[in-house]
Amino acid sequence: MKQNPHPTLAPPGADLGRRVWIKNIRPAVDNGRYPIKRTPGEEVRVSADVFADGHDVLAVMLRYRPTAAEKWREVPMAFLGNDRWRASFAITSLEPYCYSVIGWVDFFATWQHDLRKKAGLGQEVGSELLEGAAMVAQIADRAADQDRTLLVDHAALLADQQQPVALRIEAGLAPDLQSVMDRYADRQGATEHPALAVDVDPIHARFSAWYELFPRSATTEPGRSGTFRDAEGLLPHVARMGFDILYLPPIHPIGRTHRKGQNNSRAAGPDDPGSPWAIGAAEGGHDSIHPDLGTLEDFHHFVEAAHTQGLMVALDIAFQCSPDHPWVKEHPEWFRHRPDGTIKYAENPPKKYEDIYPLDFDCQEWRELWQALAAIVLFWMDQGITIFRVDNPHTKPLRFWAWLIGRIRAARPEVIFLAEAFTRPTVMYTLAKVGFNQSYTYFTWRNTGLEISQYLSELTRSEVREFFRPNFFVNTPDILPEYLQFGGRPAFIVRLVLAATLSSCYGVYSGFELCEAEALPGTEEYRDSEKFQIRRREWDRPGNLTEHIRLVNRIRRENPALAHNFHLRFYPVDNEQILCYGKTTPDNSNIILVAVNLDPHHAHQGWLELPVGEFGIAENEVYQVHDLLGAGRYLWQGPRNYLRLDPASSPAQIFLVRRRIRTEQDFDYFM
Amino acid sequence: MKQNPHPTLAPPGADLGRRVWIKNIRPAVDNGRYPIKRTPGEEVRVSADVFADGHDVLAVMLRYRPTAAEKWREVPMAFLGNDRWRASFAITSLEPYCYSVIGWVDFFATWQHDLRKKAGLGQEVGSELLEGAAMVAQIADRAADQDRTLLVDHAALLADQQQPVALRIEAGLAPDLQSVMDRYADRQGATEHPALAVDVDPIHARFSAWYELFPRSATTEPGRSGTFRDAEGLLPHVARMGFDILYLPPIHPIGRTHRKGQNNSRAAGPDDPGSPWAIGAAEGGHDSIHPDLGTLEDFHHFVEAAHTQGLMVALDIAFQCSPDHPWVKEHPEWFRHRPDGTIKYAENPPKKYEDIYPLDFDCQEWRELWQALAAIVLFWMDQGITIFRVDNPHTKPLRFWAWLIGRIRAARPEVIFLAEAFTRPTVMYTLAKVGFNQSYTYFTWRNTGLEISQYLSELTRSEVREFFRPNFFVNTPDILPEYLQFGGRPAFIVRLVLAATLSSCYGVYSGFELCEAEALPGTEEYRDSEKFQIRRREWDRPGNLTEHIRLVNRIRRENPALAHNFHLRFYPVDNEQILCYGKTTPDNSNIILVAVNLDPHHAHQGWLELPVGEFGIAENEVYQVHDLLGAGRYLWQGPRNYLRLDPASSPAQIFLVRRRIRTEQDFDYFM
Repeated sequence: MKQNPHPTLAPPGADLGRRVWIKNIRPAVDNGRYPIKRTPGEEVRVSADVFADGHDVLAVMLRYRPTAAEKWREVPMAFLGNDRWRASFAITSLEPYCYSVIGWVDFFATWQHDLRKKAGLGQEVGSELLEGAAMVAQIADRAADQDRTLLVDHAALLADQQQPVALRIEAGLAPDLQSVMDRYADRQGATEHPALAVDVDPIHARFSAWYELFPRSATTEPGRSGTFRDAEGLLPHVARMGFDILYLPPIHPIGRTHRKGQNNSRAAGPDDPGSPWAIGAAEGGHDSIHPDLGTLEDFHHFVEAAHTQGLMVALDIAFQCSPDHPWVKEHPEWFRHRPDGTIKYAENPPKKYEDIYPLDFDCQEWRELWQALAAIVLFWMDQGITIFRVDNPHTKPLRFWAWLIGRIRAARPEVIFLAEAFTRPTVMYTLAKVGFNQSYTYFTWRNTGLEISQYLSELTRSEVREFFRPNFFVNTPDILPEYLQFGGRPAFIVRLVLAATLSSCYGVYSGFELCEAEALPGTEEYRDSEKFQIRRREWDRPGNLTEHIRLVNRIRRENPALAHNFHLRFYPVDNEQILCYGKTTPDNSNIILVAVNLDPHHAHQGWLELPVGEFGIAENEVYQVHDLLGAGRYLWQGPRNYLRLDPASSPAQIFLVRRRIRTEQDFDYFM
Repeated sequence: MKQNPHPTLAPPGADLGRRVWIKNIRPAVDNGRYPIKRTPGEEVRVSADVFADGHDVLAVMLRYRPTAAEKWREVPMAFLGNDRWRASFAITSLEPYCYSVIGWVDFFATWQHDLRKKAGLGQEVGSELLEGAAMVAQIADRAADQDRTLLVDHAALLADQQQPVALRIEAGLAPDLQSVMDRYADRQGATEHPALAVDVDPIHARFSAWYELFPRSATTEPGRSGTFRDAEGLLPHVARMGFDILYLPPIHPIGRTHRKGQNNSRAAGPDDPGSPWAIGAAEGGHDSIHPDLGTLEDFHHFVEAAHTQGLMVALDIAFQCSPDHPWVKEHPEWFRHRPDGTIKYAENPPKKYEDIYPLDFDCQEWRELWQALAAIVLFWMDQGITIFRVDNPHTKPLRFWAWLIGRIRAARPEVIFLAEAFTRPTVMYTLAKVGFNQSYTYFTWRNTGLEISQYLSELTRSEVREFFRPNFFVNTPDILPEYLQFGGRPAFIVRLVLAATLSSCYGVYSGFELCEAEALPGTEEYRDSEKFQIRRREWDRPGNLTEHIRLVNRIRRENPALAHNFHLRFYPVDNEQILCYGKTTPDNSNIILVAVNLDPHHAHQGWLELPVGEFGIAENEVYQVHDLLGAGRYLWQGPRNYLRLDPASSPAQIFLVRRRIRTEQDFDYFM
């Protein structure tokens, strides 16, 4: 061979990686840049492409641990074919977790695989047996006690040419040898994927029913603001309906300068209470309580009373100030100024919010401002609040939320934040990625079957589900959807059932149970909006939905399928006005079907096509569907079944699928 | 306000990023881990989500440069809606490029946007004009010459309360002011995406027709190996058919030990030449030439002669050794040994390749081995070879190829490597990611319309297209597909047209043009395979496809739409035996439609549904389709048109769509 005159290439570096490749690990948000979200009791099902050159057998393990723990726990991953591997682990405590995948070339398993193949073909394996003996002997040197004995014995038998070949093959393939060799596997050349993070939240971050209430409207006499004491009187109403979280709009002093009057008029009368979101007055700012509501002690009493009724209290975080907020004088540097020296109010032409000054998060003294805002959250946490609904987070820097929520939750993972952002999808999703535990959604504007199924597929079947937890509000003080304005009582039932069964988190703003539907014409604003005035309500008004809501919330609690969103599926019906979908537990122990007539005006019927095989039901098996809302029970068979929904009686049905049907064999005399 | 007793949170760190977010940049391979591939003359169309909190206007630029250049070039990105931005740049030289996206909050554009909106609504803008004056004056301080003059003048006018407001508004919105302000924009807070890489290859990496030839079969007399001089006699045949690249299986000395005989028999006769892939003998190894073929000088002469005919020569890189390879004695440490001291031959039970010893890429002396292998490639590069077809790269470490190809191409970007890997998709794709410029594919096993359209969608419409360049071989010395075995001459035409028009790179192994179809029964192996014996051919045999191939290659060269794969689309035909698809240039200046009857035995007809609007053709417009293969011309109108393909006469049609049809208005007397 010729002497090769070439200079050598620059030598290989560490950047080339190792022999085993681990790619496309799932779940992963933005390639692992952000954590996935889970709650205690949930599983993380991890899959990855793991492969190497050639045909060697690989060993692949899923590793996981609470991030604060020192040692990884490991579970072998199952090979699914086509280089894909999968395993799961469970979240068992309320703290951050992390996970990873590690893989290496399993030389002994490769040897076993080849030996089995050649022996099966009747090929000569004398050399192979000696190679195996050497591998086992080498591991024996590193082992102790009975492991060592077992390895030494097997190595000797494998190498013993006096013994029958069949016996030696059997020894080489023995399961006990394999398990000991696995334990001592040489991981020197192993490839480990960078760890991925799991944000673990309390269970109500995933599964909860919210109720929004203006405490001042709990008044017992006209012309006087309701107090926390008054509001305690409404707690049984809310608790009876089965809600988990009672969310209060801001409870702080309200500014007087440029206060808005009824129906958002620019001239407030002397008795107009103003918008609770115009925060701050002579009486104090974000860490004070409106004197009309009571004292901090009254608030504590209210929170305690709610707790006794099984309700958690959520507060509103609205980082903006009325012109009378103490900060306007104490920290003018935290606001934007006009050339004439006045402070800029909020506006979105043609709208002007003269009663609100935005904070300048990018001002020169932003560090002091951010700490002051953090101090507000910490203050309310000290009052026992662990749930915050954040007003308009998309108009504040994303990095501010990343900092605030990240720092707080690092020490207090039980604290959660709901993002009230109605903006473009990229921003909605990024808020969730940087830390928000729940998010408002576009649900109120998704009304047709196609709109709903497409939106829910995005939320529950794409990567979105790993970081964005939807909270489906049927209405809010800002949004009375057109569907409710014009659909009458059946529309309220339809939207209630949709919200409560499509999403494991949903919410209702008070008045919904009374089918309040009067809007300012051409808008989604309530007429005589509670944002600008006190509204006493007659809670027992005829036609109210209190019992409906109570039943729906009870169905949610009794059926674990409804506590998760990952297993939502839509099923075709030959009438597009009927939307049908199902939720199941992963083991099919709980199967819920929901059928909704989206047309609140007319009865509709149609044929449903149900993939019964996915529920473990045979094509010709008879099963019972039990309408938990209407109490009817029906025997169905096979995939094709008839549905009829009349808005006058039952615009929606929530079926529990029961697989066990009594037959003649259940009777004693059958035997 | 109460004194807040709380400790502050740990301060914000740099990890929180900046105000503008840049996400989902496309194209990007594995999130930017690997380069995309392009050739000079191609565009890179870049898009990204760019967004910030709030409603400020953003400025977004695409940046790009040859990686070796010092300065970025910039082009403004267009806003597509929903936070998506897009721009393109062109690759103009054969060297690596990189690109990035930079974005910042454009305070002046935000001011202009608000001013325009408020002025349009008739709102008072006195304060806004003063704010604008201050912004312009501030930039004026940093500007010089006529820029400074323009800014100073505009600032004065904006601030001048003696002037009419309308005039001041007009000044604030003036385009020349905007363009100067843009140029001096403050990018201090800008966010820049990490740079992404472009691997730039010679144009034939994207667009080339390959022909594979065993030079020893060019013999003129039975019983003697053909030489390079003989093979020069075949060059006109290959060149006339219009191929670009002539690929030769290994040309090195062939081992004698365990040499395989005809049809892969274990006992070679004394005259059997052996498989060219059993490389190495007493005469030399991978950098030597088989004496039967000639000398290195003969090889040079052959390469030169090919070049004169417009053909580039590609060599085979098969990193394995026959038992007689000089390395076996000189470097036994580069091979795996059995317990009895012999070297392990290649095997894949039940198959045994006793004539081939694999190299042990992970041996202790791997650094020396890798350098020796690199030296082989460098040696042939010194002989003028810049195209290498790599045998079985998937059985060698991926990091070896990353190192070899990366290091070589860093200095010599004109050198390209074709991966002959037939293995699982993850490994095929990873070979391409780590550096291979072209790849063999599953094309030979995709025969039905659904199989073909699904596979091509994966290759041309997913991220795969950015890094994996398919080379569609219709046959290889290892693969005589069943479709060709049983389909007769029409099947050869069908597969030729499919390969040459679906993929901008395709290849033919010699004998295809003679419709050679005789296989070892039940296999895809050729009977009397050229791998194990010399095969003289009668090139003018009746029924040969030489003229067909020539025509197809001419159509490829004359129609730029066929030189790219990104614009491939499939069109529905109501007969699944007819596959119809189109390729266009991005500007629709060249539109090619291909219709293929996949059934080589029966004539088929059907109605085609063509989205003529995508070609810029109106629904009722008449256009001409000109069959470049059969020379027929047809007038079509609208989307629905009739196709009939008879395998006996024309199993395939390649239409050029001509939009200009003569009408009465083209005649002088019409005027």
